[in-house]
Amino acid sequence: MCRVVAVKSTTPIQLAHLLTRPRHSIINQAFDSRLRLDLRRPINGDGFGVGWYDSVVDEELGCHPCLFKSITPAWNNSNLNRIAEKTKSPLVFGHVRATTAGSLSQDNCHPWSYEKIMFMHNGGIAEFDKIKRKLQASLSDELFLVPQGNTDSEWAFALYLSKLPDVHAREFSPAVLRDAILETIQHLNELAREANITEPSLLNFFVTDGSTIVASRYISSKYDEAASLYFSSGTTFSEYAPGGHYRMSKSDKRENIIMVASEPLTFEKADWMEIKTNTLIVITPKARSHVTRRP
Amino acid sequence: MCRVVAVKSTTPIQLAHLLTRPRHSIINQAFDSRLRLDLRRPINGDGFGVGWYDSVVDEELGCHPCLFKSITPAWNNSNLNRIAEKTKSPLVFGHVRATTAGSLSQDNCHPWSYEKIMFMHNGGIAEFDKIKRKLQASLSDELFLVPQGNTDSEWAFALYLSKLPDVHAREFSPAVLRDAILETIQHLNELAREANITEPSLLNFFVTDGSTIVASRYISSKYDEAASLYFSSGTTFSEYAPGGHYRMSKSDKRENIIMVASEPLTFEKADWMEIKTNTLIVITPKARSHVTRRP
Amino acid sequence: MCRVVAVKSTTPIQLAHLLTRPRHSIINQAFDSRLRLDLRRPINGDGFGVGWYDSVVDEELGCHPCLFKSITPAWNNSNLNRIAEKTKSPLVFGHVRATTAGSLSQDNCHPWSYEKIMFMHNGGIAEFDKIKRKLQASLSDELFLVPQGNTDSEWAFALYLSKLPDVHAREFSPAVLRDAILETIQHLNELAREANITEPSLLNFFVTDGSTIVASRYISSKYDEAASLYFSSGTTFSEYAPGGHYRMSKSDKRENIIMVASEPLTFEKADWMEIKTNTLIVITPKARSHVTRRP
Amino acid sequence: MCRVVAVKSTTPIQLAHLLTRPRHSIINQAFDSRLRLDLRRPINGDGFGVGWYDSVVDEELGCHPCLFKSITPAWNNSNLNRIAEKTKSPLVFGHVRATTAGSLSQDNCHPWSYEKIMFMHNGGIAEFDKIKRKLQASLSDELFLVPQGNTDSEWAFALYLSKLPDVHAREFSPAVLRDAILETIQHLNELAREANITEPSLLNFFVTDGSTIVASRYISSKYDEAASLYFSSGTTFSEYAPGGHYRMSKSDKRENIIMVASEPLTFEKADWMEIKTNTLIVITPKARSHVTRRP
Repeated sequence: MCRVVAVKSTTPIQLAHLLTRPRHSIINQAFDSRLRLDLRRPINGDGFGVGWYDSVVDEELGCHPCLFKSITPAWNNSNLNRIAEKTKSPLVFGHVRATTAGSLSQDNCHPWSYEKIMFMHNGGIAEFDKIKRKLQASLSDELFLVPQGNTDSEWAFALYLSKLPDVHAREFSPAVLRDAILETIQHLNELAREANITEPSLLNFFVTDGSTIVASRYISSKYDEAASLYFSSGTTFSEYAPGGHYRMSKSDKRENIIMVASEPLTFEKADWMEIKTNTLIVITPKARSHVTRRP
Repeated sequence: MCRVVAVKSTTPIQLAHLLTRPRHSIINQAFDSRLRLDLRRPINGDGFGVGWYDSVVDEELGCHPCLFKSITPAWNNSNLNRIAEKTKSPLVFGHVRATTAGSLSQDNCHPWSYEKIMFMHNGGIAEFDKIKRKLQASLSDELFLVPQGNTDSEWAFALYLSKLPDVHAREFSPAVLRDAILETIQHLNELAREANITEPSLLNFFVTDGSTIVASRYISSKYDEAASLYFSSGTTFSEYAPGGHYRMSKSDKRENIIMVASEPLTFEKADWMEIKTNTLIVITPKARSHVTRRP
Repeated sequence: MCRVVAVKSTTPIQLAHLLTRPRHSIINQAFDSRLRLDLRRPINGDGFGVGWYDSVVDEELGCHPCLFKSITPAWNNSNLNRIAEKTKSPLVFGHVRATTAGSLSQDNCHPWSYEKIMFMHNGGIAEFDKIKRKLQASLSDELFLVPQGNTDSEWAFALYLSKLPDVHAREFSPAVLRDAILETIQHLNELAREANITEPSLLNFFVTDGSTIVASRYISSKYDEAASLYFSSGTTFSEYAPGGHYRMSKSDKRENIIMVASEPLTFEKADWMEIKTNTLIVITPKARSHVTRRP
Repeated sequence: MCRVVAVKSTTPIQLAHLLTRPRHSIINQAFDSRLRLDLRRPINGDGFGVGWYDSVVDEELGCHPCLFKSITPAWNNSNLNRIAEKTKSPLVFGHVRATTAGSLSQDNCHPWSYEKIMFMHNGGIAEFDKIKRKLQASLSDELFLVPQGNTDSEWAFALYLSKLPDVHAREFSPAVLRDAILETIQHLNELAREANITEPSLLNFFVTDGSTIVASRYISSKYDEAASLYFSSGTTFSEYAPGGHYRMSKSDKRENIIMVASEPLTFEKADWMEIKTNTLIVITPKARSHVTRRP
């Protein structure tokens, strides 16, 4: 199972504070992993990716996110260390891959982007080989050619794009982004049913247009728990003790910074709210509120 | 355009003599490149791959080839240098990639193998995006799942496998391997015709089962020349002067070693026979004779 | 021989305009290479590096440059493509490595930085193995531990740092940066003399503190030409025709953008002035003037 | 802390049985890691290396080992998987790196070789920066130039080579290989003493000439335990249950296969004998006996 984090901040935050400096970041995480479902293989192994949007909109640079991916380990990646020290962003996705689907290549590293939309997945589509052809057949010629790798997750991204009313739109409402997640899950469930797949799929999807973040915690089963998903928010996220000990401070009720992650990313577990199975969370452009809703 | 070489030798030959030591190997080649059609981008750039069969059949090790691929340059690859010094083989494929199709990943490096069959491609399928879906639709479920990368060439390999009467056969006759090449080319031509593609495809394919090699020099055009293909054979291939100067010696009429390559790989151009456009060459298991035939 | 470019611009310039979009950038360069001294090996092979300073000084992000390095080819590097599209900078160094010294690793890719100082080298120190120990012995304990790779160039960087009056200074005058280059060259010449090395060294060094750029064109020989070095300046550097055709425009006498490169980077050779052998060029913080001087 | 294994077998063994197929190989190991001293960072992270000698001596191929190294994770490395399936060897070293010393590069991956000698290290030299210069000063010009990376371990290898009476010898007796280990440890202890280093060094060294293996379990402290080291031997090492469950069989008293590893590599802990702290083990060319001795 992978490790993921999505962050929205009213003030651009240095990537180093999210990724490389905290002891308990998704990259350095070396502590309590009892929350993890899958102990079959070492974490931090199959590459990682980071995506972020600009702090200041610059017409020449465009509205799409920047992505940095690598197939060598994240915690010892000089490029990532340097870029994380030098970059601030109001909206960041990070993903550490540890999975059995797809070979080791940058093409297979999350997140992916298409124009303004960025997407990542924590989980897996059960017996994907059995539904791959039908999923592909449902895509337009444009979207069929989007995936460059060979993972279930990247095809789920193409499917997600196909559920947007207009993939080239200049703006997306939170409702549009959310509904496309719901339709993607529904479509995958139908494909599984048609193929008589009974093994449940783990569909924790994260999507953003640079303003809104939508994340699902979903499993296609009535009895099992989905892959874990946690939420935290506060006024600042900063180092309170040397050695990378970070904490979410809540000096008032404002949500200046909001994080959604596969695990609590600080030692204070109380600061992290578990998002319930088969629920989704929407972080609106103002980063001030959120709503959850059953898929 | 890529650089390729296929070698069959009655005595196992050290890979270093084919790949890393000769000044004019497909890897080190830095001399006369006037033969090259495509000067748009530097050679030696998009990764390379080497495949070889065992010198001695060992039941435990199986009959499939071993492959070594890398996305870092071949001439400065320590692993390749060491392995080439330490490995002997009677049948070797080498491929240096330089193309615009597909991203930089090991999955996209030639050659590919499936059980005993090994395959590589020099050229490109014109406007492949327009025929990708139909090509995939023609494949069995088993072969549809073979490709791991995103190149036209790897899908051509899957198509080739589909033309074999039994992809799991323990033995393949030269005629079977050759006919599957002809059917693959014919099928690609039909797909292009249906999609109204007029740009010609360059279809120099190389295939082997570890005993026979079949290579095509083909372009789907009546007016243009295919990508170059050369042939050389002799009693020994060895260094005649320090500094990696190699030569094909012909002390008698025996063909102990046979090479098919995208360019002459020695300074003595006279030792290299050009294979005519829209022809194919078959090197039989005994490495003693060859026949060519129009596709 | 490597390819290098150093750029200073009064307005921050998108890295893509310098590195990835121009047909004739140091990365894409596929045209007239008659200027190159060394044709022994393909260009673009042994990794590359890019370093740049922030557009806006942000106390939290510091004054040191950001570096991105890779051992896979530059022109097909997705991370570089994405970062170059998303980054603007007033001062950029780029380096494509093609050399025989040092193995293929990111540690061996130029440029290197230490606090505010960034450095790269085009050329080679003759018979470096014979002077390596003495060079190391001349370094302080701090600087002895700076190099992480195994190239002559990185040790030249450590030597350069040792020539600065205070490597931790917050500001460096152009004269200080320039004199340290002169002393570095002088020291290397002395080491060569002591070791009876007669083969000339090619010492085109590039150094900056984020404000001033100093570049040398030097060979330790009275008879040979140094590795080439060119200079161009103008009001804007932009694409005048589709397909990556860039030009330096000179609408007035202002030098808004200044480039120093191993080769002319546009088709209009007249826009490029050759810097004479055994000369150095200083680009001052205002990017408005330059001076040259014999080392 | 790293994971290491050294294997000597009277019959050449397929590398896959040692490295890639067993669930509990140093590469796949995902089970009881309570033996590990250092939980600060994920295992399997900083690259790996494998070295092996030929099954059959072939004059053309030489007597030195072949090495394969990579900075991407071992368990998802297609090249390693393919090579391990296709290679048999009577003497294999494997090393998975997880350390804080030295950057991520193939040059920094163990094992290293010089002519016939192969070497790897599990542990670390305390405060190496303080003794690096003196260590280097003790080396001949030839050996000073051997290291290509920047780790304490590779310099320990150069130091080891300097303790051999003749590094270019065609044969080495077990006593010569062993004494050089003892002198290396002694020399490192002296350097530490001179530099007033009190933190203990962990010096589990493994060395071989292709016939004899010598391994030390050593810590430069009277109170602490050295990094763990285990020993197992038997008639065959094979899979007794599907899913990579391997076992050492002991059908008679012969030691056909001998393993020395940082951890027990099978579930049957009783098959593994712990090697005492500050002891070394010698496996003689016949792989039939071993002796231990206090350093």
